[in-house]
Amino acid sequence: MTNKTLSASRDKLLFTPGPLTTSHTVKRAMLHDAGSWHWEFNALVASLRERLLALAGVSRDQGYECILMQGTGTFGVEAVFGTVVPHAAKVLILSNGAYGERMILMTAALRIPTVILRTPEEELPTAEAVREILQREPEISHVAMVHCETTTGILNPIEAIGQTVRECGRQFILDAMSSFGAIPIDFKAVGIDFMISSANKCIEGVPGFSFVIGRRSALLASEGIARSLSLDLLSQLRGFEKNGQFRYTPPTHSILAFEVALDELEEEGGVSGRAQRYAENHRVLLEGMTRLGFRAHLDPSVQSYIITSFHYPQDPRFDFSDLYRRMSEKGMIIYPGKLTKIDCFRIANIGRLFPADLRQVVGAVEASLREMGLTIPIPAL
Amino acid sequence: MTNKTLSASRDKLLFTPGPLTTSHTVKRAMLHDAGSWHWEFNALVASLRERLLALAGVSRDQGYECILMQGTGTFGVEAVFGTVVPHAAKVLILSNGAYGERMILMTAALRIPTVILRTPEEELPTAEAVREILQREPEISHVAMVHCETTTGILNPIEAIGQTVRECGRQFILDAMSSFGAIPIDFKAVGIDFMISSANKCIEGVPGFSFVIGRRSALLASEGIARSLSLDLLSQLRGFEKNGQFRYTPPTHSILAFEVALDELEEEGGVSGRAQRYAENHRVLLEGMTRLGFRAHLDPSVQSYIITSFHYPQDPRFDFSDLYRRMSEKGMIIYPGKLTKIDCFRIANIGRLFPADLRQVVGAVEASLREMGLTIPIPAL
Repeated sequence: MTNKTLSASRDKLLFTPGPLTTSHTVKRAMLHDAGSWHWEFNALVASLRERLLALAGVSRDQGYECILMQGTGTFGVEAVFGTVVPHAAKVLILSNGAYGERMILMTAALRIPTVILRTPEEELPTAEAVREILQREPEISHVAMVHCETTTGILNPIEAIGQTVRECGRQFILDAMSSFGAIPIDFKAVGIDFMISSANKCIEGVPGFSFVIGRRSALLASEGIARSLSLDLLSQLRGFEKNGQFRYTPPTHSILAFEVALDELEEEGGVSGRAQRYAENHRVLLEGMTRLGFRAHLDPSVQSYIITSFHYPQDPRFDFSDLYRRMSEKGMIIYPGKLTKIDCFRIANIGRLFPADLRQVVGAVEASLREMGLTIPIPAL
Repeated sequence: MTNKTLSASRDKLLFTPGPLTTSHTVKRAMLHDAGSWHWEFNALVASLRERLLALAGVSRDQGYECILMQGTGTFGVEAVFGTVVPHAAKVLILSNGAYGERMILMTAALRIPTVILRTPEEELPTAEAVREILQREPEISHVAMVHCETTTGILNPIEAIGQTVRECGRQFILDAMSSFGAIPIDFKAVGIDFMISSANKCIEGVPGFSFVIGRRSALLASEGIARSLSLDLLSQLRGFEKNGQFRYTPPTHSILAFEVALDELEEEGGVSGRAQRYAENHRVLLEGMTRLGFRAHLDPSVQSYIITSFHYPQDPRFDFSDLYRRMSEKGMIIYPGKLTKIDCFRIANIGRLFPADLRQVVGAVEASLREMGLTIPIPAL
């Protein structure tokens, strides 16, 4: 029920899109209290900002900056909209899932006029549709989209869209929350102006902050726009530049953990090494679930190796909350579906999870289904 | 320089107003990964919200709610302003230090018309001045002030001001960041509508979230006002009520640590027990520093037992950054001053610090001053 219960047992493995299962060494880094005003901590923050730029394949010399922002990934995305979209401008948001919809709620809260390009949850938006809108709507200053939409697990075509946005002379905002660190992103080819990701996704840190990698000139040009003090990205950058500090109390322990998480990402071979493990995790999962009779919701051509949506079995004995409970008793946390029209559940394979863990989760799904009285293979849709 | 260096040595003691030195048991609670969608974690969050209400001496039956908000304390304060101040209204902000000034920056960023009552940093605002402004300005819907202003360490007169605010029919917002948990606050006598505090102040948790304790009816009446999605306090409450969850990824590890921090606060005797330790810490500090010849900036009648500002010695051999470095080498982090007109430095005595630690910090100041060639007692202002 509580932390004391948690402490008494082995942690459950998290097959969710975050918070994730992290390594013990990452967590152990939090056994220290750091003074956020102190030079040691400031040097650490400076080094993390540099290392994130390097991980993105860009540099300060090329005009990019990395800004850490307290709070969740959503706070980081809102910080970008609230800081850089001029008061007289509109944004175009591409949505094919819950995180696209969240950006729409965000610009509504910020009273930013928004044009929406919605695509069905299992389909990719097209560059042609984006171009058509941008030609029709000259007030649109920024186009925003989600890279890996964990609603389904779909991987959106950022290169085609990004190039179109640039050709039309607009800025491109990319929510790469659950892709950065494990799916290669070519910043220059895509033409990213602002990318947002989070400490506790593919870098496998613990939650507490997000980070924005963006073009310095685009950020400096946003002087005077900020709609918030806390989520003012330009002031946050100026704070780091003035004295190396966060403007307001940083999540010091999450930041200590993040250093170790970056070390472990590098030891694994950086983005390509991590991509390899996650892709293998996903392959093992998909193969095992297919063997049990499950059908993945997405076409393989658009499926990411981050998270997978599976249709419910067509059997009245199946009940997701029962499966969830049985999986939890076996030490594994799976994830409910988020699709608007079809009953699905989700299994993510990111975090400190290895192919053996994915074989284990498939085995536990099989055992749970048998306990529930279903036969294997299950009758799929 | 980095975490690895930190890990290799004993942590420095933090004589700062946060992040603080926390207990090892609080930090050890972070050695677990919790699923933020899982019922165990949700039950923990629910219990923490209840326990914070109990710590405040109020209850849900009496119409109060506790809402946790990701990010720093500043994010929590901004969430209150952004969620509850109607678009046609004004706020009155009382300021006698940097945190009052920060609220003014906040309402400016939110484009909320603001009336300012500034008092010199070592003086208390008066209820009469507040009454006079409220009578003159009927558009003011909310009055906001800081309880313990760590700029100086002054403790502001919240009962007198709060009663006046209520008599004038307005709502009262209290930033109790560095007081809640260690300085008794009588919610009903003060007439608090919204109080904000943080995980890593007097409750001695680690940073990652703030919390707001407020009147439910006042919050429900703010429907449709929110100026932000991330910092929407009403939606955050509704999220907890709908399914027990944070709307967006919570800082799970900070929350696990907070449970242990609350346990340890209760073991110490709650607010009064902690008040006793901090008051004794402060007495030891003040006595020792006075013996060295230092003069505290504030009159004892307005000085809190949280943090103390000391004037620089009147000796050309004194240099604060040199003292800071020498103290750091001795394993203690002190804090620069923040006064606008007088050169001061600050020593806080909150967090997992005991009277022996305060004797140690005084001894280290003495040794450092002698190393710098000053004589004891130092020539004070």
